Amino acid sequence: MHEKQILKALHEHKDEHVSGDHLTSQLGLSTAQLSQEIEKLQEEGYHIDSSPLGYRLLKTPNRILPYEIQRNLATEYIGHEIHHYSEVDSTNNVAKELAEKGSPEGTIITAESQRSGKGRRGKKWISPHGGVWMTIILRPDIPTSQAPLLTLLTGVAVAETLKRECNLDVGIKWPNDILIGDKKVCGILTEASASKRGLDYVVVGIGIDLNVNVDDFPPELREGATSLQRELEKEISGVKLVQNFLLNFENFYNDFKNGQFQHILNQWRRLSTTIGSTVEVQKRGRTVRGEAVGITKEGVLILEMPDGSLRKIISGECTHFKGE
Amino acid sequence: MHEKQILKALHEHKDEHVSGDHLTSQLGLSTAQLSQEIEKLQEEGYHIDSSPLGYRLLKTPNRILPYEIQRNLATEYIGHEIHHYSEVDSTNNVAKELAEKGSPEGTIITAESQRSGKGRRGKKWISPHGGVWMTIILRPDIPTSQAPLLTLLTGVAVAETLKRECNLDVGIKWPNDILIGDKKVCGILTEASASKRGLDYVVVGIGIDLNVNVDDFPPELREGATSLQRELEKEISGVKLVQNFLLNFENFYNDFKNGQFQHILNQWRRLSTTIGSTVEVQKRGRTVRGEAVGITKEGVLILEMPDGSLRKIISGECTHFKGE
Repeated sequence: MHEKQILKALHEHKDEHVSGDHLTSQLGLSTAQLSQEIEKLQEEGYHIDSSPLGYRLLKTPNRILPYEIQRNLATEYIGHEIHHYSEVDSTNNVAKELAEKGSPEGTIITAESQRSGKGRRGKKWISPHGGVWMTIILRPDIPTSQAPLLTLLTGVAVAETLKRECNLDVGIKWPNDILIGDKKVCGILTEASASKRGLDYVVVGIGIDLNVNVDDFPPELREGATSLQRELEKEISGVKLVQNFLLNFENFYNDFKNGQFQHILNQWRRLSTTIGSTVEVQKRGRTVRGEAVGITKEGVLILEMPDGSLRKIISGECTHFKGE
Repeated sequence: MHEKQILKALHEHKDEHVSGDHLTSQLGLSTAQLSQEIEKLQEEGYHIDSSPLGYRLLKTPNRILPYEIQRNLATEYIGHEIHHYSEVDSTNNVAKELAEKGSPEGTIITAESQRSGKGRRGKKWISPHGGVWMTIILRPDIPTSQAPLLTLLTGVAVAETLKRECNLDVGIKWPNDILIGDKKVCGILTEASASKRGLDYVVVGIGIDLNVNVDDFPPELREGATSLQRELEKEISGVKLVQNFLLNFENFYNDFKNGQFQHILNQWRRLSTTIGSTVEVQKRGRTVRGEAVGITKEGVLILEMPDGSLRKIISGECTHFKGE
């Protein structure tokens, strides 16, 4: 309850102690209640010095906690309502439940770990502590057919954030993997609920391997994965990254809702490592191999086949091959 | 004859006078001959102070003179032989004559103005004083079908040079116009000579509107054209620009000859303002309109037609339309 207010007071006086009297009188708490609240914060990882002078914040935990996200968050509506869980089956599942119950557009769900994080095509997404596991609830007034564009948009927003904040040379593998070199650092899973009336809501799940030890991944996933911590050889602040991502996302999403999608698609094309590569796309047991030469404005991949003909690939699992 | 050596000596002692005695004895000239050579340089635009102390170089003319290009030129072979003309019908025509006579790969032809500069499809290319009018002779060992890739390569080399040297946001309009905003600043004309034995030589003509007054252009060209001087609101040094272009060109061309064209094509795609635009392509009186969605590794443009079908456009005159 009073967590936010206590943290606000401590953050505002970072270089000095805030007296217990000041806090109790301002928040209408007893000394015992205040002391309990401080203990709760300490359990969450806040280093708070307690002395006869009062309380002083020494260190904020590197956790993606709602109060920390919302402090200095520059968005207009994305992330203004946050549901945070220490563990959850999947943030996309929670988001769908909340969306059904009427949670507003821009609500985000964050978890410190997921028991059964979901990848595309029913795959499992490994989600240990240290990652960003987050879902955004959206209620755009668009035809259902345009929902896949939200995946491209989210990919561009993540890639731009990683480029700017971490100075990393990231690429996007069609349709929605964010890569550093040829290793995956982020996946995106968009799920839409539509009825006869049209699109009801969309949930966009984002998983970023932030301070995650990839060596703990199952062997079959280990080689193709990396984390920001591994790439930058240091622990990364998740809060700043999430805040910047949410702002980038909101800007792109506003453009999208205003019908201005072309520059987002062009940005996607520029970030794409698929276009220009020889690729193999698998779908329902069938494999198509060709040269990826473009993407349509619906996000459909275009392959040039060995005989020179062109082929549209609407969805599938894509593998890149090296060489000309 | 002795021009280069005199300039070399003057450039090396830029802050001091070089004595006449020193120059005459070093170059084996009489005082009268030296004085004549100095006068010739002064006529070419070099400001040279002449005093009892000797000669001192005050200012180099902003002209693309061979000696100035070759001073500090970092290339291995491009531009090591330069044929310079104050006026010429077309540098491409001179290049073809020289290529027929055996001029080596990398020879460049420069002119201060062209009487009948050539654009694509037999169009005239306006070439007044102040521009870069240049042709490069190439003798690549490639199939004739690959010659058009040299146009794409040159476009990327020009665009990269303008981006880096002038910090301009340039784009490429398929296949070979370099634009700033929606105005053309550079055109490229590639002409190949092939026989039964295969490709004999290729000449790549590059026209850059450097310090050119676009207002002097014929009305029908004026609106679609710009110059570097206009964009940057100052006179630009042509020598540095040409030197950097030649180096960029050589690097890309070496990659091309080594079969490494993919990254050049990807760079082309990133610089392209055509991909993502609605375009109209005219060829032989017929017009095709669609959404430009990609380019193949042969440089063929791919259009998505209103009915969703894909169409390859090998060549033609392309116009962009605004909007989604």
